[in-house]
Amino acid sequence: MIEKAFQDYYPDDFSYCYGCGRLNKDGHQIKSFWDGDEAVCTYIPKPYHIAIPGYVYGGLIASLIDCHSTGTAAAAAYRNADKEMGTDPQFRFLTGSLNVKYLRPTPLGVPLHLRSCVIEIKKRKITVETKLYAEGELTAVGEVIAIQVPEYLIPK
Amino acid sequence: MIEKAFQDYYPDDFSYCYGCGRLNKDGHQIKSFWDGDEAVCTYIPKPYHIAIPGYVYGGLIASLIDCHSTGTAAAAAYRNADKEMGTDPQFRFLTGSLNVKYLRPTPLGVPLHLRSCVIEIKKRKITVETKLYAEGELTAVGEVIAIQVPEYLIPK
Repeated sequence: MIEKAFQDYYPDDFSYCYGCGRLNKDGHQIKSFWDGDEAVCTYIPKPYHIAIPGYVYGGLIASLIDCHSTGTAAAAAYRNADKEMGTDPQFRFLTGSLNVKYLRPTPLGVPLHLRSCVIEIKKRKITVETKLYAEGELTAVGEVIAIQVPEYLIPK
Repeated sequence: MIEKAFQDYYPDDFSYCYGCGRLNKDGHQIKSFWDGDEAVCTYIPKPYHIAIPGYVYGGLIASLIDCHSTGTAAAAAYRNADKEMGTDPQFRFLTGSLNVKYLRPTPLGVPLHLRSCVIEIKKRKITVETKLYAEGELTAVGEVIAIQVPEYLIPK
């Protein structure tokens, strides 16, 4: 059996996100999974995701950190409530804030590996730290404060 | 005479950026201009730049803030040195850090207006604050610390 990614559990109306929606055919369609207490994601940038030639565009790095982190927040909320992902009530998160530090240029043409851990779960607010690696080197670190979407805003 | 955008002065090798490079045919190709002491940019997201249906993808917002802010940093460095943009030595900036606060959902289908001001110029580090508006409403605020690219790294 193939393991389902966090994003595969999102309700259809939350699946058009350009970063992570399985129904957005133009988007990145990232996939995130648990690896113990951390959440992981691998993404290969397109050849046109250029910053300066040979290096990955910082806006893509921010986008990957954003979507992988909010996905991790959703999965963590289910874990924290001791519930199966995808069950009702739906736990879905939007980005409240996104901070990215670019430590060194990220080479283009290799897979990028993202690794997230949950820093804090506080009512409707989950803080996630995400590290991004290329060729085994840490090139960027992000922190996302993810805010739970009120249930009445989630389409049925 | 049509005013040239900041990005139109970038050397060719710095013009492949997915966010702002005039030579990246797949990218956003944003254009930034002075408006007094502030720098402005208008961008219309594509229909597929979705977060949840009807709203703009946060990763795109981060990307626009990133590129418009580093462009503003470059233009500010020329102003600060009392030089014409595009003259040697080339002042080009990369993102050291990017912080975005999402204040409210940004509606999709309308032009987004970005407005930046320079907070601090400190040797090779310029801090820029950028506000993003949709339909006259402030929906996101970003702060970018832009780091000047050492001259020896700029291709001739």
